Amino acid sequence: MQVDTPYLEVDTERLETNVARVADLARAAGVDVRPHAKTHKCAEIARRQIDHGAVGLTVATIGEAEAFADAAGTTGCTDIFIAYPLWPTPTKAARLRSLADRVSLRVGVESVEGARHLGSVLDTGTSSPAGRVEVLVEVDSGQHRTGASPERAGEVAAAGVAAGLDVIGVFTFPGHSYGVGDTRSGAAEQEIRALHTAAESLRAQGIEPRVRSGGSTPTIAFVADPRHAGVLTEIRPGVYPFNDAQQVEIGSCGFDEVALTAVSTVIRREGRRIVLDAGSKILGADRAPWATGYGRLLDHHDARIVLLSEHHAVVEFPSGGEVPALGYIVRVVPNHVCNAVNLVDELVAIGGSDSRWPVIARGRNT
Amino acid sequence: MQVDTPYLEVDTERLETNVARVADLARAAGVDVRPHAKTHKCAEIARRQIDHGAVGLTVATIGEAEAFADAAGTTGCTDIFIAYPLWPTPTKAARLRSLADRVSLRVGVESVEGARHLGSVLDTGTSSPAGRVEVLVEVDSGQHRTGASPERAGEVAAAGVAAGLDVIGVFTFPGHSYGVGDTRSGAAEQEIRALHTAAESLRAQGIEPRVRSGGSTPTIAFVADPRHAGVLTEIRPGVYPFNDAQQVEIGSCGFDEVALTAVSTVIRREGRRIVLDAGSKILGADRAPWATGYGRLLDHHDARIVLLSEHHAVVEFPSGGEVPALGYIVRVVPNHVCNAVNLVDELVAIGGSDSRWPVIARGRNT
Repeated sequence: MQVDTPYLEVDTERLETNVARVADLARAAGVDVRPHAKTHKCAEIARRQIDHGAVGLTVATIGEAEAFADAAGTTGCTDIFIAYPLWPTPTKAARLRSLADRVSLRVGVESVEGARHLGSVLDTGTSSPAGRVEVLVEVDSGQHRTGASPERAGEVAAAGVAAGLDVIGVFTFPGHSYGVGDTRSGAAEQEIRALHTAAESLRAQGIEPRVRSGGSTPTIAFVADPRHAGVLTEIRPGVYPFNDAQQVEIGSCGFDEVALTAVSTVIRREGRRIVLDAGSKILGADRAPWATGYGRLLDHHDARIVLLSEHHAVVEFPSGGEVPALGYIVRVVPNHVCNAVNLVDELVAIGGSDSRWPVIARGRNT
Repeated sequence: MQVDTPYLEVDTERLETNVARVADLARAAGVDVRPHAKTHKCAEIARRQIDHGAVGLTVATIGEAEAFADAAGTTGCTDIFIAYPLWPTPTKAARLRSLADRVSLRVGVESVEGARHLGSVLDTGTSSPAGRVEVLVEVDSGQHRTGASPERAGEVAAAGVAAGLDVIGVFTFPGHSYGVGDTRSGAAEQEIRALHTAAESLRAQGIEPRVRSGGSTPTIAFVADPRHAGVLTEIRPGVYPFNDAQQVEIGSCGFDEVALTAVSTVIRREGRRIVLDAGSKILGADRAPWATGYGRLLDHHDARIVLLSEHHAVVEFPSGGEVPALGYIVRVVPNHVCNAVNLVDELVAIGGSDSRWPVIARGRNT
């Protein structure tokens, strides 16, 4: 397959290995997997996750949920969780009701006001749970982005029930697990503690939290700890089918587990410095404070991307070792694969039968 | 017009003012304007630029050139410069030749090897200039990304002529103009000096550099300096129709000149901290080292975005002043508008007759 650079390529064998590994790990730990589809936005990858036993999909927006509801024929999945504390307008509420007619739908709330608002806009005028949408209360496990404090989860749940919502559990996202050193294990501990406290808080209100959902790619390795048995019922990792430079740098995976790269061409070489035709418009501009550059090179682990423009990556190579020549192909590992995938209309899948996978939920922000 | 948040909105009156202002400034300075269309990727905006006297368009990739060649009926423009040091494969060379049949086409080279390679892949087997594509030599004015040293521009140009290319001038991008303090004026001085030196270097090889192209939004204000009369023949600013938080923070424009915002909804409020539903998947993840956050708020200049996820912006407000309530609409100014626009399929244009403008060159990376 001849494709002009830059483009995003998926190694389907590695993808399959990554999906199977997390499925096995979750099975051993006795938790369900509900992968976050915001990472890949592809029906073909969702289908592989479902084939490996995923109980449903997680998404971040109503638009992503619609895209995957439309693709149910390919994915085999009709169970979707919008893991986001929505504040729906009447238009968005109508879209939620329409979705709930087609799939099993769950959404998040994170405040008493949010629960009341959701109940109010979803109100179907009957005594049945509003809009037949199931609701999970988001709690903050330490990232301090969204989420009620775990101790107040029951209060939010009770407000939801009073507003006619069908509250079935709690969820959290340990986004503060992205960091070096002991960050991942520390965040995993907080994640589990937060879900435990939140579940107790719901029970104190007489609401059974039958779903207790956590997880992220960095904390997957810690959920199987027998000390936490029974706290989580499901995990929602997103990045794991592909992995990325962030996961490599925080220690979640090795380079040999990276399944997606931006294939690019060397357009300049001077000394131990080259410039590639892949920039922030295909890699994304993410660079966490602890990141060592704007992405990594799959086949040159010592090299660093020191400058990133929209269509240029300036790469420095340490002394010793070959520097790729002008016109050569170089595979770049994006820092944050979710933002990279969202920049393209299709992924080029290699291994087995080569094909193009449409990114069906690209740009579905609303 | 009822649109679900988040979405990108263009204030067409401000857009018109911004386009007219740069057109007037360039006219007074006696230089042509060839706006960089990578910023807006919209036929409707290119048309406005052409209506205000732009001599053609600049793009970064062959794919962007193809999109704007297809839109010539709307834009009125058939003169396109791919301001990038291409290293074309035979496939890309065929695309360049096909483009050159439809529009006046210019491309960049930045090395002797690149010039020879371009001449070789474009070779049409005749004695006419290869592929009827005009060529400009890129020189480095201080960003140290791509570009020959200005002193060696003539050597690159001579290699191009020897390879059958039609070398018509030199260009540079003062990307190091992005910074605070005296950065902009310092970069503008270097830009002008580099183009002067490069032009002399071509003349020393007997090649007349009739096009001497520079410019960027941060350095626009400095090109009209009479001390530099005659050095530049054209400028290629990109961001100026919209402006963005980076331009505000480096002093290129005021908030009242910002014409594009991400319209978003408050989904959480606690104390003086709110969370918006606009994240890196609509704002882009750009954050320069000198930036004060991940974007700014058009109507709250003191607020800062302290944390950005894919669908969350966490905003802190200083003491005093109103904090937007849950469900309220807030307009976010992206740090880097070029990457924000590349994330959406259409812009919502308001003022005059409301309409949707398709982002015709979105994702055209190759």
